[in-house]
Amino acid sequence: MTRLRDYNRSLIGQPGSRQQIETPALVVDLDALQTNIDGMQAFATAGGFNIRPHGKTHKCAEIARRQMAAGAVGVCAAKLGEAEVFAAGGVGQVLLTSPVVAPGRISRLLDLAAAHPDIITVADDPENVAALNAAALSRGVILNLLVDVDAGFHRFGTESPAAACALAQQIADAPALRLRGVQGYAGDVQHIANFEERRIESEKRIRMLGAARDAIRAAGLECDIVTGGGTGTHAIDPALGILTDVQVGSYIFSDVQYDHVELRATDNHPFRNALFVYTRVVSARHDGFATTDAGSKGFSTEDYPPQIVAGVPSGSVYSIFGDEFGKVTLPDPAARLPLNSLIECVIPHCDPTLNLYDDLYIVSGDKLVDIWAIEGRGGAG
Amino acid sequence: MTRLRDYNRSLIGQPGSRQQIETPALVVDLDALQTNIDGMQAFATAGGFNIRPHGKTHKCAEIARRQMAAGAVGVCAAKLGEAEVFAAGGVGQVLLTSPVVAPGRISRLLDLAAAHPDIITVADDPENVAALNAAALSRGVILNLLVDVDAGFHRFGTESPAAACALAQQIADAPALRLRGVQGYAGDVQHIANFEERRIESEKRIRMLGAARDAIRAAGLECDIVTGGGTGTHAIDPALGILTDVQVGSYIFSDVQYDHVELRATDNHPFRNALFVYTRVVSARHDGFATTDAGSKGFSTEDYPPQIVAGVPSGSVYSIFGDEFGKVTLPDPAARLPLNSLIECVIPHCDPTLNLYDDLYIVSGDKLVDIWAIEGRGGAG
Repeated sequence: MTRLRDYNRSLIGQPGSRQQIETPALVVDLDALQTNIDGMQAFATAGGFNIRPHGKTHKCAEIARRQMAAGAVGVCAAKLGEAEVFAAGGVGQVLLTSPVVAPGRISRLLDLAAAHPDIITVADDPENVAALNAAALSRGVILNLLVDVDAGFHRFGTESPAAACALAQQIADAPALRLRGVQGYAGDVQHIANFEERRIESEKRIRMLGAARDAIRAAGLECDIVTGGGTGTHAIDPALGILTDVQVGSYIFSDVQYDHVELRATDNHPFRNALFVYTRVVSARHDGFATTDAGSKGFSTEDYPPQIVAGVPSGSVYSIFGDEFGKVTLPDPAARLPLNSLIECVIPHCDPTLNLYDDLYIVSGDKLVDIWAIEGRGGAG
Repeated sequence: MTRLRDYNRSLIGQPGSRQQIETPALVVDLDALQTNIDGMQAFATAGGFNIRPHGKTHKCAEIARRQMAAGAVGVCAAKLGEAEVFAAGGVGQVLLTSPVVAPGRISRLLDLAAAHPDIITVADDPENVAALNAAALSRGVILNLLVDVDAGFHRFGTESPAAACALAQQIADAPALRLRGVQGYAGDVQHIANFEERRIESEKRIRMLGAARDAIRAAGLECDIVTGGGTGTHAIDPALGILTDVQVGSYIFSDVQYDHVELRATDNHPFRNALFVYTRVVSARHDGFATTDAGSKGFSTEDYPPQIVAGVPSGSVYSIFGDEFGKVTLPDPAARLPLNSLIECVIPHCDPTLNLYDDLYIVSGDKLVDIWAIEGRGGAG
């Protein structure tokens, strides 16, 4: 897609260029992005907690740098490829939040840890801990590890405080590993829409982390880091005094899913929509609807359709019209849209939509001001 | 994701390397792929029709070259970026099957047409035809055009034989445009599972193309190409004697969706599954299920879940466990899978799943034999 990127690059800095971006394009409102970065950091600072923003949402080194510059204690990566990208981009304080198991991947992880000693990863299995230690030992690298604790989501994690403590002991005893603490993530809690229901459920889950921490400390082992949570519970979890940092991710862009969540007890929607798909009308042969150039290869579409925020009459509805194309249904069944009309949509779910694109087109005011590569994308990592 | 690619590249040609590919990876069985290419071409040759395979399915120049080498009359592209990739890869006989509307995109199209005079595209709107002619005229390029005919899908296309004829006349009268014929695509027909129901519906749609062709010819205009159809109707449409070529796409890989379609009246499933996602177990802390490394960023999941074909006990079921992770539920609720177990899945729908990855890992027998870039991917184009 080099030619699309090159074409759009020629628009940078030109007055009115925000409206001229070739589509489909993933567009970031720079002012909204920075407002979200600064707003979350200010909330954390005021609340006396740290944030360790999750980079799986943006996969972009420039955004990781901005999160660190604002005061984050580190960033998270879901996949090794994201961690490599952030470290190469100058952010070595990366927590890789899923276990590294395959031999080839362990080898890449050790390359990374050798160059960036602050890299931390997680484990939930004695066999994996033994493999990590053996590999790190043979490379002469010390690897920072957290014990992953199952906080009720059952995707990863030791299943009890005793199991967490046993794994912590194995890590502490391993000459090439350094025990740093525990992690637990309850992804199923983040999107409970009602604040009070989410609070009750999240507190149960965070207390599981607390119990694991207490068992580890009771064994005389280090547990300096207790990390978990996310955007959906950032205003809930810190009050328990268990987490040392919160893994906020989606706040950076917000999306239609989070627009349906009451994020705080008051000031329910503190973050601005900062990420948009721009799409254009490519056919308008019928009254009442038009065909656009972004379909299921341009939007992730679980749960909600894309939400149109500009470019068409209020009340217009977006739907998917195949892999490459979308459909805009107009409120007036006799109306037609002009060809090439620019339509701006908030995306249903930021993480998997961003994963579809190679580039972020950065806009401010009426201008395209920059293009940032989504270096960490690729379905793999 | 350079490091993943580099790691896997080091495996090429090694015995047993098929089982060592780092995951999640999109894997092509080369023998199945070539069997599908040759089998479709042989069926077309025996039936006396041409094929113009749709490259939106694979977005890969190497596969386009193989389709041409087997005897295709050209390839299709859904987006301009795909057309650019195929032309750069030596296949200039590209039909771009959707209208090119935005000025920047028209400019790129003319760059392409200037270098590759066989490029053809489509139009369904007088305003667009005028814009294409003006731009081509100022560039001194002749642009080949088909009239897009709405074959009942309503996504694109002139709405009647009279409208098709009027647009054909406008194209024929435009000094920088060359009228070549008509195109129509009924995407909603391709996946009707029952052969006879699909035949009845597709014949109605193809006759709409015939009516447009007849109207254009009655006006004394050229209509040498009549193109449409797809894998789902390749054994139906040619019998009507209307299409000059069929835009078969998914046959190249087949997928779970097409495994549910009776493709021919006899020999219902003539194509082999050639495209797989390989994923590995990254956590196995519970009896009865395990967590893998491919979720909704690794599979498109409309309609059907991924279908496991190797690596786990028969009866195991794959489901999505978040954006980055999958879940394999075992038939024995007391069983566990070993960490790092390799699991091979047929994908639900090949086009949008392929769009998630940057590379195709090509396997033959027990070896990884090559890596082909998916040059045309990128959500955009």
